[in-house]
Amino acid sequence: HSSKLPHLGTSIFTTMTGLANEYNAINLSQGFPEFDAPERLKQGLAKYCNQGFNQYAPSSGIAPLQAQIAALTERTYGTNINPLDTVTVTSGATEALFVAIQTITHPGDEIIIFDPAYDSYKPAIELAGGHAVHIAMQAPDYAIDWQHVAAAITDRTRGIIINTPHNPSAKTLKQAEFDELKKLVSKHQLLLISDEVYEHIAFEGTPHISVLSDPELFSRAFVIASFGKTFHCTGWKMGYCIAPEALTQEFRKIHQYVTFSSFTPAQLALTDMLAEESEHITALAPFYQHKRDLLVSALQESRFTILPSEGTYFLLLDYSEISPLDDMAFCEYLIKEVGVAAIPLSVFYQSAPNDKVIRLCFAKEDDTLLQAAQMLTTL
Amino acid sequence: HSSKLPHLGTSIFTTMTGLANEYNAINLSQGFPEFDAPERLKQGLAKYCNQGFNQYAPSSGIAPLQAQIAALTERTYGTNINPLDTVTVTSGATEALFVAIQTITHPGDEIIIFDPAYDSYKPAIELAGGHAVHIAMQAPDYAIDWQHVAAAITDRTRGIIINTPHNPSAKTLKQAEFDELKKLVSKHQLLLISDEVYEHIAFEGTPHISVLSDPELFSRAFVIASFGKTFHCTGWKMGYCIAPEALTQEFRKIHQYVTFSSFTPAQLALTDMLAEESEHITALAPFYQHKRDLLVSALQESRFTILPSEGTYFLLLDYSEISPLDDMAFCEYLIKEVGVAAIPLSVFYQSAPNDKVIRLCFAKEDDTLLQAAQMLTTL
Ligand SMILES: CSCCC(=O)C(=O)O
Ligand SMILES: CSCCC(=O)C(=O)O
Repeated sequence: HSSKLPHLGTSIFTTMTGLANEYNAINLSQGFPEFDAPERLKQGLAKYCNQGFNQYAPSSGIAPLQAQIAALTERTYGTNINPLDTVTVTSGATEALFVAIQTITHPGDEIIIFDPAYDSYKPAIELAGGHAVHIAMQAPDYAIDWQHVAAAITDRTRGIIINTPHNPSAKTLKQAEFDELKKLVSKHQLLLISDEVYEHIAFEGTPHISVLSDPELFSRAFVIASFGKTFHCTGWKMGYCIAPEALTQEFRKIHQYVTFSSFTPAQLALTDMLAEESEHITALAPFYQHKRDLLVSALQESRFTILPSEGTYFLLLDYSEISPLDDMAFCEYLIKEVGVAAIPLSVFYQSAPNDKVIRLCFAKEDDTLLQAAQMLTTL
Repeated sequence: HSSKLPHLGTSIFTTMTGLANEYNAINLSQGFPEFDAPERLKQGLAKYCNQGFNQYAPSSGIAPLQAQIAALTERTYGTNINPLDTVTVTSGATEALFVAIQTITHPGDEIIIFDPAYDSYKPAIELAGGHAVHIAMQAPDYAIDWQHVAAAITDRTRGIIINTPHNPSAKTLKQAEFDELKKLVSKHQLLLISDEVYEHIAFEGTPHISVLSDPELFSRAFVIASFGKTFHCTGWKMGYCIAPEALTQEFRKIHQYVTFSSFTPAQLALTDMLAEESEHITALAPFYQHKRDLLVSALQESRFTILPSEGTYFLLLDYSEISPLDDMAFCEYLIKEVGVAAIPLSVFYQSAPNDKVIRLCFAKEDDTLLQAAQMLTTL
């Protein structure tokens, strides 16, 4: 029996975390925080579970959580949305991305993605019978060549997936890039999937610009967000999608047959968290900026070239002065011989360039980052 | 922009629960328990969340839960499976069904399903580019005509989805039917998806027969199970799929891009629950059999014809002596005028027969069932 995804194996995150555990390396590969979710969020989960809220939530999410998401959207971007018609709670941003991609992609459709691209986009496009059209961004600045994008658009092009702040490049999209994007999607009537899971982790001088703050772009967009990134609870698998009403209707038709609904006590706990606590979110960017700066300064004496990190909890390092190995081999070497696990960048490309770049996750305790930096500085 | 599921709207469960709430009717429509999850399961969730297990689980599930699922499979069916290679934890049985269907269905493939069929099968098949081939079972006994099945097999037939105990008919597959099934799948080299989410709710005299207890059938099968049904926690959205190693590999490739992983504290709590507590599961069938019998006897004086319920927490009622309305109209009447919400059977068919049958969920407190029965007896 033939495979639906013949070219694919296990995701790089599973592979690298597995190797990190096996060799007892400091795991800066798969992106997840070493610190815990806020106390009140955890207490909320326990409380609502204990009080017996353990049956199905509505498929689109509980109304109070939809309302809190709308309030957060207003606080953050000044944009008013109607929560009941535009917000759908999902089992993580991964599900939201998968469903949004299924919603827009008909067999034969082309979807433009920017390499290095998060690893779930392409298989989701292919499972829907579509084709991923890859536009490569190039190290070290990972800028998008918009003429190149325009030239890639055909009459089969149905949508574009953007991601800002960007994983793995740690770059944020600038206003001029949004303007270029807007011209293209309007001219060609394209749909947009905007992966903004790191929206609250953009650093000084490189603010996050959301599709939600641009009515014209939002009118044709699915905006994907993640509670796991924002509240240090990646294992809860809670996210959401905001889209205009007509697109949301189609999104929900599919969502109801993919997972139907998401963990009920978590929805209630997140509702309270959003209602009572806004400091956590406003403190998130400075919190991670401190970690980025700590890691960057601890690596100053190393032979790595440090690439700019404008957002996310990732930092790219160029190791071309250290080793001639390809990035997969270099990452294996790092795990087995140095004791630090990272992610090779080439796995995020259709046609990997010759860059020698790896990704580190700095969502870790300061001591962990210092220790890893010290080990990397021996190279 | 065109719809991926043009013929579909909101799932019947969302619609009926919405109407039940709006009209304050007793909700015997969507299937979920009125009683709570076991104390120790809830305490486990709170404990592991509190202890900080809030980051990503492995994509296939945590190893201790996989091991406990294998132990349960051994206890229940006497079948030994290798947990790491065959068990994948999912975000509910809905996700497991969706991923299994995506795994086997290539564009143009035909998948045989039996009507009345659970509502997620067909959209999942269509999203994969396949065609659902409907074989109707007929009230009141919902037997399968295997010659009819054999005649429906073409060289595009790729698989069959079975469901036992069956939702919505409440029928269990008998050994003779398994024998017929086995002949067909072997002869035509078909794959099998076996939806066994009510496996622990089969009543006296009509035992559940699992595909897991038949090595030949299991060698080509995905068996889908649900913790929500077994532990009264439908809102946790925790389920799993057991399949032979080669099929599991393909299943996991897709699962990792649909949800990646499932709620970590719930996986830990379910692990302990399965390890420490087997009485809950063995008590489940008698527990629900009592409720079935209570509801059946409370409806004796009514003008409904009661169909046999061999398993699940559903009971079918034929109302042809009461009303000439079609089943959707009759259900609306029941909600608005009688105060009881049920599910019309016709929605589960490609070509609905003229049966006048509705489905009641009896996973409710005894008092709730008696009250609903009393209201229905006024008709
Ligand atoms: C779903 S596991 C991957 C986590 C992540 O987003 C990353 O490491 O890039
Ligand atoms: C996922 S909501 C539907 C619950 C259910 O399985 C049913 O009512 O049949």
